[in-house]
Amino acid sequence: MKAVIVGLGSMGYGMGLSLLRGGIETLGIDVAAEREEAFRAEGGSAAPRPEALAAADVVVIVVVNAAQSDSVLFGDDGIAASLKRGCVVINSPTVSPAYARQTEARLAELGLLYLDAPISGGAAKAAEGRLTIMASGRPEAFAAARPALDAMAETVFELGDAAGAGAAMKVINQLLAGVHIAAAAEAITFGMTQGVDPAKTVEVISKCAGSSWMFENRGPHIAEGDYTPHSAVDIFVKDLGIVSDIARAARFSAPLAATALQQFLAASGAGHGREDDAAVAKIYARNAGLTLPGEK
Amino acid sequence: MKAVIVGLGSMGYGMGLSLLRGGIETLGIDVAAEREEAFRAEGGSAAPRPEALAAADVVVIVVVNAAQSDSVLFGDDGIAASLKRGCVVINSPTVSPAYARQTEARLAELGLLYLDAPISGGAAKAAEGRLTIMASGRPEAFAAARPALDAMAETVFELGDAAGAGAAMKVINQLLAGVHIAAAAEAITFGMTQGVDPAKTVEVISKCAGSSWMFENRGPHIAEGDYTPHSAVDIFVKDLGIVSDIARAARFSAPLAATALQQFLAASGAGHGREDDAAVAKIYARNAGLTLPGEK
Repeated sequence: MKAVIVGLGSMGYGMGLSLLRGGIETLGIDVAAEREEAFRAEGGSAAPRPEALAAADVVVIVVVNAAQSDSVLFGDDGIAASLKRGCVVINSPTVSPAYARQTEARLAELGLLYLDAPISGGAAKAAEGRLTIMASGRPEAFAAARPALDAMAETVFELGDAAGAGAAMKVINQLLAGVHIAAAAEAITFGMTQGVDPAKTVEVISKCAGSSWMFENRGPHIAEGDYTPHSAVDIFVKDLGIVSDIARAARFSAPLAATALQQFLAASGAGHGREDDAAVAKIYARNAGLTLPGEK
Repeated sequence: MKAVIVGLGSMGYGMGLSLLRGGIETLGIDVAAEREEAFRAEGGSAAPRPEALAAADVVVIVVVNAAQSDSVLFGDDGIAASLKRGCVVINSPTVSPAYARQTEARLAELGLLYLDAPISGGAAKAAEGRLTIMASGRPEAFAAARPALDAMAETVFELGDAAGAGAAMKVINQLLAGVHIAAAAEAITFGMTQGVDPAKTVEVISKCAGSSWMFENRGPHIAEGDYTPHSAVDIFVKDLGIVSDIARAARFSAPLAATALQQFLAASGAGHGREDDAAVAKIYARNAGLTLPGEK
């Protein structure tokens, strides 16, 4: 099997390494030449790009959003026209179910397969080949993608035989993740107004019914004042924006997602867009005149 | 040690049984004579109420809110005046930190100790003596309450040497719990608009970063259409109301808690107040024209 991976960021680079570890000859493509070079140095394919695309059995796209994905496939230098019939495109970014369905149809016209395959899990799991993939697509797409999925993922949820279901589940997950991060920030700063230290809130609530995966993961960032961006505020501006767009189109009232989006927008607008998403706590703190751990 | 427990509802009855199992002679008091009788039949004290109150080393109050707690202690038939000096009042309902501090002071004037001791964990854990208690109070109050705490709780968080900190932590927990239940309902019904079955959402998200304790616990209620009230919608109308009151007094903007409260208020107003709190999903479904599992 031969693969091409497009996008060698924190997730894509690790996923590419997992493909290599799975014995799949893989060319890495990125906007940054130095990341392509680093990937080659780790054992990535040195084949010229046109040959690698023409020979690819699978293409994994690990970019930020639907617009970038569309540009990779169908833009001025788009790769879709260079792929051989039967090649499967595994698309990882968080996109709308409608975009996933539309792209599946557009690639089918070129004789290409599409796997709607958003990912969950951080950069560490990507590098270990232990991601969770929420996938849907035609059975032929799953069959063609299988060795690559096995190399990259610990768990592959097979959510249906057409694109859209994978994207939908990822968007459901992001609705919850975004609300839970903002709720963690709201609860920890609310506690500060009552004289409760953030570290104590994190310690106690983690063992109580008010806990969440995000509370346990992001709460310590707030308690320690560490906003190193494992996942940035602007990711949730984007993903809760997708939730908002889909909900509006479906005439679905999603007040918690809408409220959380406003808090992330405020955090981004206040200059924290590239900080860790836990920096949404800075909006709560500023609005209440509180000094967070690590602030002067 | 001799104890009196006031309030033999689903939590109090089990806590009373745990006190008996711990070898503590315990009189059960309730507004319903048949519950008092049932508790006596399980080994509860048969002492006349005036004698039991006068002899009590510890009084455990397990009522619904601050108003009931106040009535139990200081109302027309209030028990505070009947207790001996040094007796400790362990107060379990979710109340404001200000109420806890005020009650500690009021009891101190009578020579009585107060332990601010909200509880977490359901009726099953109450009956097994495995509750989590978020406690604060004077060291003498902890010392006097210790055998009763050991009988009722698996984990006792000691949050400070004055009343208020226990109440604050419980309110922080309820903020998160209420937001997370409403978020679970929002996410599951949002998924339905995208063609995703609630049971599938519960199955997949429980293994992803969007999960929460409440999502895993209440999500199945929605997927199975079972609104048997383990904890009712009106409990979160009350508890998020306490959050709202405290936040307003502290000039703390808590938009997620405020939004979740509106959803529980709508659920209660629509006639679901006594159903399981997961019935907040019915508001989302009604607003979007969706038919939940179990509905016709």
